[in-house]
Amino acid sequence: MLDWESIFATRSSRMKASEIRELLKLLDRPDIISFAGGIPDPELFPNDAFREAYAEIFGGPSVGAALQYSISEGYRPLREWLAGQMAALGIPASVDNIFITSGSQQGLDYLGKLFLSPKDTALVTWPTYLGALQAFNAYEPSYDQLNPAGNRTPAAYAQAAAEAGGRVKFAYLSADFANPTGETVGRAGRERVLELAEELDIAIIEDAAYQSLRYDGEAIPPILALEIARKGDINSTRTIYCGSFSKTLAPGLRVGWICAAEPVIRKLVLMKQAADLHSSTINQMAIATVAERGFEEQVAKIHKAYRQRRDAMLSALEKYMPAGVTWTKPEGGMFIWVTLPKGSDGAELLAKSIQTAKVAFVPGRAFFADGSGENTLRLSFSCANDRMIDEGIRRLGDLVRGEVAQAA
Amino acid sequence: MLDWESIFATRSSRMKASEIRELLKLLDRPDIISFAGGIPDPELFPNDAFREAYAEIFGGPSVGAALQYSISEGYRPLREWLAGQMAALGIPASVDNIFITSGSQQGLDYLGKLFLSPKDTALVTWPTYLGALQAFNAYEPSYDQLNPAGNRTPAAYAQAAAEAGGRVKFAYLSADFANPTGETVGRAGRERVLELAEELDIAIIEDAAYQSLRYDGEAIPPILALEIARKGDINSTRTIYCGSFSKTLAPGLRVGWICAAEPVIRKLVLMKQAADLHSSTINQMAIATVAERGFEEQVAKIHKAYRQRRDAMLSALEKYMPAGVTWTKPEGGMFIWVTLPKGSDGAELLAKSIQTAKVAFVPGRAFFADGSGENTLRLSFSCANDRMIDEGIRRLGDLVRGEVAQAA
Repeated sequence: MLDWESIFATRSSRMKASEIRELLKLLDRPDIISFAGGIPDPELFPNDAFREAYAEIFGGPSVGAALQYSISEGYRPLREWLAGQMAALGIPASVDNIFITSGSQQGLDYLGKLFLSPKDTALVTWPTYLGALQAFNAYEPSYDQLNPAGNRTPAAYAQAAAEAGGRVKFAYLSADFANPTGETVGRAGRERVLELAEELDIAIIEDAAYQSLRYDGEAIPPILALEIARKGDINSTRTIYCGSFSKTLAPGLRVGWICAAEPVIRKLVLMKQAADLHSSTINQMAIATVAERGFEEQVAKIHKAYRQRRDAMLSALEKYMPAGVTWTKPEGGMFIWVTLPKGSDGAELLAKSIQTAKVAFVPGRAFFADGSGENTLRLSFSCANDRMIDEGIRRLGDLVRGEVAQAA
Repeated sequence: MLDWESIFATRSSRMKASEIRELLKLLDRPDIISFAGGIPDPELFPNDAFREAYAEIFGGPSVGAALQYSISEGYRPLREWLAGQMAALGIPASVDNIFITSGSQQGLDYLGKLFLSPKDTALVTWPTYLGALQAFNAYEPSYDQLNPAGNRTPAAYAQAAAEAGGRVKFAYLSADFANPTGETVGRAGRERVLELAEELDIAIIEDAAYQSLRYDGEAIPPILALEIARKGDINSTRTIYCGSFSKTLAPGLRVGWICAAEPVIRKLVLMKQAADLHSSTINQMAIATVAERGFEEQVAKIHKAYRQRRDAMLSALEKYMPAGVTWTKPEGGMFIWVTLPKGSDGAELLAKSIQTAKVAFVPGRAFFADGSGENTLRLSFSCANDRMIDEGIRRLGDLVRGEVAQAA
């Protein structure tokens, strides 16, 4: 029998099952209150709008096209609609700056593939989106810490990357309501990332998966918008914007997009032609129809529901968490990030919580490229109702209080 | 402005626009008779069955699941149906041997990613499927010639691979009605490929995209079936079977599958989790419904139409092609492969044909990993009617006759 490990590519050694993900698979139990998932509430999907969109495709003249192969760039009417959306965000773009991906996760995979040779360095925040680390890992990079509030010099980054055996290729960040922290990078932080990227002559990957989910506060221009304001033209920019319909319309269709300078888009199109030809034609058409007819209305509906859940969770944390525990106060998104007193261990807490409190969450360590963050955890409020939130946070607070008292 | 080429990964230098593909983009003109496309006839798509399937999803209890994230392995009822199909082909498999991909092209990309480190060798036929070369190129392999009828020793392959700087990782072939030749590898050839793979201790990638499209002659067991017959169990095999719904149901949904030993499937699942999470949930559900209800009937409909077109094209070639021109007589698929007299150039012929004969086809050279095959060309009969076939082959025959006469 073939010893598979012996003939897999070297990159495959970094494709590992996440322990957390495996653990969470076991938690789909009715007696557990889960704040672990990072998924949208299916009750909020625009089912009727999608039903109509598919029915119209099958009743119309484009049904053959909907079921046929299509171009790797993506469905043109959808790209046109997206160009309009980008313009409204301060990002004047043509259809040639828009590329459709099978979810924004595919955008991250393709960008890793496009930029990273083994031993190159990717700059990521500590913590960062776990899925980005998983996507990039296939291309065998090193990681270094991006800190939008920090003051490490470009030369220090360049030297560390050279010592790791390559060069810095990009800075990856989610500037709005990031997974896992829920935090937003302010305008000054965005400008600092742009300046660092200029100095290092690298790309910026702006993951905008949660950008539409702002529940209060002032919108901050996307990094790509700030760069266009400096340079006058998207085709002179180094920022690559990754968008998603998964948090606004529905994830099951697998439709996202990248908006960037044409040289990047052209290369991504070639990559996609070779990798999966194109994203589902019929789904792109359905997304285009639903987006054109009621994107803003759908987003308003989501805002209302998630804002209330966020508020409920923040109130419950205030009410039930002992002193010494802190958490973020997100202006949008799906997540709240909790920091326990030093010496606490989120993974151990989860193991106990499943036994006693019956509350699930994600220990924070998985989100750190350097394996730190033991005393952190991620809570999601997107799929929970007020009763679950109050009861779940109460139980979790009791558990944490016991742990803190024991440690003291 | 960022010099993008300077920060792209080394692999990106092998992602190039195909000249042929660019040329063919210009050929969507009403005055041109095209045998160039390799796509199924949209008139044959089971529109009504798909319309019902989507409508039922939206009218049923699974609509939330259809629009939601789902597991990377793929939709379980679809994998169960596929396990039954595989068993009928002599491949007893469990759901854990089945992995859903976004079209079989994605299967090829993932297998390249799983096996190929730079400078490793992939064995491919001369000619082979262009899309396979494009998918594998991203992982920077060398190629060597796989010849199921040949007698090069395993030692010779191993030595050539070592000289190229790596080792042989897999043999890739399409054994039934291959794109581009339409030819089938006989049972003895399949057994020889299996023996070569055993000796080299490598994987076999069996691209079965056209396997369901047999119009006459006896079916030959898939290579994976022959290997299971030897070894008793799919989990002891080295053959990785890649299937597609694109030629039978519809390509626009982007649903294909891989059937293989569990250690390979488990790694592919991790890879997909990192690369695009999962294939479209709703499309997998729709495919499962349409396949369960009428796969055989749909395939019979396609057989009837394509058999007639193949026969028409073979008759026309017989009638109009001058002496010295030969072609394959496929028992299935979508393609006929034409060999012109030595010294002819398919690409030059295409350029002339577009000007004068107004007939399009694909010059054969793109399908050769070593850039040979100048005097070959690929004709597709899948989207042509009898009148187009007779008229187009007549014009092409006249053009070729002139060329041959001039060369003599």
